[in-house]
Amino acid sequence: MNLSDYVLKFLEQKKVKNVFTITGGAICFLMDAFSRNKNMTYTSVAHEQAAAMMADSFSRLGPNFSATIVTSGPGATNLLTGIACSWFDSVPSIHICGQVNRYELRNFDKTLEKVRQVGFQETDIVSMAKPITKFAYQLKHENEIKYILQKAYFISQSGRPGPVLIDIPMDLQRKKIIPEKLKSFYPKKKKIKKQKLIRQIKEILKVLKKAKRPVIIIGGGVRISKTIKDLNIFLKKFDIPLVTTWSGVDSITHDTKNYIGNVGVYGSRSANFVVQNSDFVLSLGTRLDTRITGGVPKNFAREAIIASVDIDKYELNKKRGLKINIKINECLSDFFCYFENISNNSIISKPEWLKKSLLWKKKYPIILDDYKKQKKYVNPYFFMEKLSEKLSKDDVVIADDGAHLTWTIQALKVLKKQRLFSAFGNSPMGYAFPASIGASIALNKKRIICIDGDGSIQINIQELQTMISNKLPVKIIIINNDGYGIIKQFQDLYLDKRYEAVDSKKGVTNPNFKKVAKAYGIKYSEIKNNSNIDKILKKAINSKNAEFINVFIKPDQKIIPKLTFGSSLEDLSPKLARDELLDNMIVKPVIRNKKIIESN
Amino acid sequence: MNLSDYVLKFLEQKKVKNVFTITGGAICFLMDAFSRNKNMTYTSVAHEQAAAMMADSFSRLGPNFSATIVTSGPGATNLLTGIACSWFDSVPSIHICGQVNRYELRNFDKTLEKVRQVGFQETDIVSMAKPITKFAYQLKHENEIKYILQKAYFISQSGRPGPVLIDIPMDLQRKKIIPEKLKSFYPKKKKIKKQKLIRQIKEILKVLKKAKRPVIIIGGGVRISKTIKDLNIFLKKFDIPLVTTWSGVDSITHDTKNYIGNVGVYGSRSANFVVQNSDFVLSLGTRLDTRITGGVPKNFAREAIIASVDIDKYELNKKRGLKINIKINECLSDFFCYFENISNNSIISKPEWLKKSLLWKKKYPIILDDYKKQKKYVNPYFFMEKLSEKLSKDDVVIADDGAHLTWTIQALKVLKKQRLFSAFGNSPMGYAFPASIGASIALNKKRIICIDGDGSIQINIQELQTMISNKLPVKIIIINNDGYGIIKQFQDLYLDKRYEAVDSKKGVTNPNFKKVAKAYGIKYSEIKNNSNIDKILKKAINSKNAEFINVFIKPDQKIIPKLTFGSSLEDLSPKLARDELLDNMIVKPVIRNKKIIESN
Repeated sequence: MNLSDYVLKFLEQKKVKNVFTITGGAICFLMDAFSRNKNMTYTSVAHEQAAAMMADSFSRLGPNFSATIVTSGPGATNLLTGIACSWFDSVPSIHICGQVNRYELRNFDKTLEKVRQVGFQETDIVSMAKPITKFAYQLKHENEIKYILQKAYFISQSGRPGPVLIDIPMDLQRKKIIPEKLKSFYPKKKKIKKQKLIRQIKEILKVLKKAKRPVIIIGGGVRISKTIKDLNIFLKKFDIPLVTTWSGVDSITHDTKNYIGNVGVYGSRSANFVVQNSDFVLSLGTRLDTRITGGVPKNFAREAIIASVDIDKYELNKKRGLKINIKINECLSDFFCYFENISNNSIISKPEWLKKSLLWKKKYPIILDDYKKQKKYVNPYFFMEKLSEKLSKDDVVIADDGAHLTWTIQALKVLKKQRLFSAFGNSPMGYAFPASIGASIALNKKRIICIDGDGSIQINIQELQTMISNKLPVKIIIINNDGYGIIKQFQDLYLDKRYEAVDSKKGVTNPNFKKVAKAYGIKYSEIKNNSNIDKILKKAINSKNAEFINVFIKPDQKIIPKLTFGSSLEDLSPKLARDELLDNMIVKPVIRNKKIIESN
Repeated sequence: MNLSDYVLKFLEQKKVKNVFTITGGAICFLMDAFSRNKNMTYTSVAHEQAAAMMADSFSRLGPNFSATIVTSGPGATNLLTGIACSWFDSVPSIHICGQVNRYELRNFDKTLEKVRQVGFQETDIVSMAKPITKFAYQLKHENEIKYILQKAYFISQSGRPGPVLIDIPMDLQRKKIIPEKLKSFYPKKKKIKKQKLIRQIKEILKVLKKAKRPVIIIGGGVRISKTIKDLNIFLKKFDIPLVTTWSGVDSITHDTKNYIGNVGVYGSRSANFVVQNSDFVLSLGTRLDTRITGGVPKNFAREAIIASVDIDKYELNKKRGLKINIKINECLSDFFCYFENISNNSIISKPEWLKKSLLWKKKYPIILDDYKKQKKYVNPYFFMEKLSEKLSKDDVVIADDGAHLTWTIQALKVLKKQRLFSAFGNSPMGYAFPASIGASIALNKKRIICIDGDGSIQINIQELQTMISNKLPVKIIIINNDGYGIIKQFQDLYLDKRYEAVDSKKGVTNPNFKKVAKAYGIKYSEIKNNSNIDKILKKAINSKNAEFINVFIKPDQKIIPKLTFGSSLEDLSPKLARDELLDNMIVKPVIRNKKIIESN
């Protein structure tokens, strides 16, 4: 057995099953191991960036873990944007890069260190990947391989998960090894601080009892810690409002009686009123970043006691104006388990507060009646309602970025075992499409709904070929507004409508998608107004093939509601009449004027 | 004037003229400055990777310098593979990335440093870019802008040039500044070590006089130091054989009487015989890397005294088995100038040696008669001969990577003011096409010949739209061998023909290029055998439009000759009869058996 065989064997044991790859000079020996391992397969993609994004979604949906295998230099650097998706969203994955022979490396001899390159396509990928990986390592000797793989795997999965990278020089790829003689890695598992956790849970129960307006915020950490079931058991103890973050959007079925909506800068008015008026916030697996808190964190839930469960202690301890009163630095599974034991059968119920919250939900829906009546163009909010109706109970929806991501998260009703995600923290253009391919492969060629923008799809449009050659029923839905809608809305608000580099009037053009789809042999359809949606969408998403569905919306379609800069979370735009705002606020509203401008 | 206006003004002064960009949330204010600067334009591309590659070729061909402007996070990380092209090939360029507001940065507060992300799409691009830039800096205060831009520009252009990156938080982009009050950067220019240089040139002259078999190797440094004219004057003093490296391939017109060919792993037999038999090598602006020396550098020109002029002292001092006897760490322009003065009118002439060299050139041509007679498929060597015939005197040819790059460099006859280059050191798939777009823009919509592979073109195929929307007459020539030819040749040689992940039998498929070209409105033609070349090629490259020319070659077409691992540079494969090899060697040939395998 050579080292390459061992690497594949290891991935096989970790249930990776399929690896995303482009071969190349420095990875040939590793790829050659596939000829001897019949349990492992690979998908050859057209750009390594897409491979890393496929691995990201494969890990989110697959049995356990995911991997890419690529060559040195550009093969490795092409991964980085994709790896960053896994880094910011805490997705475990491993990226194995070929490297030049050890004797061709810059670190082989002191006189070589400051040379830009020694071996052909040598690049210091370890240093480049360090800021976006939990562990990045260049293999020094064949005897390290077992230890390093085990260590990398452990680090990737433990604590707050994330991607890892191993760089393997090609001379090492062909070395013979004897697995039994190799050194193993024995992880030190973090121990629960049991007494502290019990104390904190008791404190939470005490505060909850007194609280008049408590709320639970559900974040992406629930999925990451694989505690969806535990969450559902946990929630049975509560009869209070629930809200989700973007990452948490598919952690509960949206027909849950107490579910109010998404909170945040692009949240719903109702969810934001709930949080801003709350006197106790229990935050589960969310880093409460500025997209949740708004640009001035101290105004977030400002009269509430905040308790937060986060496996990442740095997130709990960051000083950004938001004060977390009860910081629980434990895994959610432990939190849920201890909470169950301590709370026994008590139910926390705040009927008046819940009733008020549900009234808000009813009074301020995301999808307004007017949207349905829109004659020209498709309304994206109404479209999402229609899409929700057509989904099966376990459909996977992957959205890209910018405006169409926002519309999807705001308006799609995620039910049952459905999934809805994006690469939230990194939010690159071009994620959704390769991620849909990775998802379909992870789920045995299942149909995947890919919601993309006309600008974004172009980033990884080369993967149309990968989709077709692998016969994957990905349904590409383009929410087409002729350019970068979210940037245009920014220019409307803050740059006096000076539209630079956002639409076809300023050089940002789309190909003829109909012709492009046809060129790749993909079925194409267009939805041009609300009345077309039903029939075309039904047919396209129920076919057995890949489909390209071009949905034309108003080029100046806005995100509604959204927080404008300087406003506090309760005061979303379009602004309510001041009286109405005051009516909704139990806590005194903040009306700020100072302009602070943040990126979208 | 705000800081963004100042940045554009600065680029304008440096003759950047056109910037390659995709806008985004964190770069809106900088992009907005274009609305107020009528002398600067931008090209909106479809993927930032392509923007960096366009900037790379724009810098190689344009008046002075080049720039990209992109947004934070994925916008910035998408640049990296393109920036690496400029780094390894010493191309000066500046990359300006938007960043989140300073108060949203991880380095804003100590408690934030270990958090993965604070501001939305915040990414530590400075750390990630450091290994592949000469200078990467995040702006801390608006008052630094003049100093930092001047410093970055100076560093980028001075010594061994290369790319630089500046990360500008969005709050700084909108700050008012008063340019006159800003601090300037005053560079310390490196002084020539005059006495040493004079001594070294005298030594070279002395050795040259005695030498029986001297050779000059011309590298990419000549172009980089803008000394093509000086080189031509310099060469008038010599009547000895000249060879080029890949990067140096377009530094002299190939009909120069003394020009023998390319030296190296994929060089010509003749050029390699010249170098391997030489007793003196004058190396001008080449780092003499392993693609030139072969895998065992000590066997390179092993009986020669080697003199090398390189602005990068680390390249001169690297210990890789090759001993450089005279290390001239000065700029080529200074070297040529002093050489001119010291040598006066003396001519260095070695007629017998030159005659022998020219005989080799005649005896071992790259393009064999058999190639022309090939009936089925196009022969790529013959194709390059035909292409050479059809080029105008100042045509620009940009080749991608792998096998088709090798065929182009081996066989294209670069004449007069023609240019031929690739991203040699980084050698990513997908460079040639966006680089051709950048080149065409640099040269006022001039036609550019792009030589690409069927695998490689897919990496940046999204830029077909950029080409079309900007009406650029790029001639995309696909040397189509159904997969990754150079890897296949590697698998033939060293992996017993186990073809993993290289062709359509193993999941590496091409789209229907005819249909794809048509979808984008690009004229398409096919060349299927040698007899078709003339007519189709002539028409396609002389049209006023972009063209897509699909050239079908044998799927198992080999690179001939090439060095196989373990052999010395004089012993290219297919191997000559041992007698014939001995006949050609004045220096004793090395016939090694130990297998050392390097990447292609």
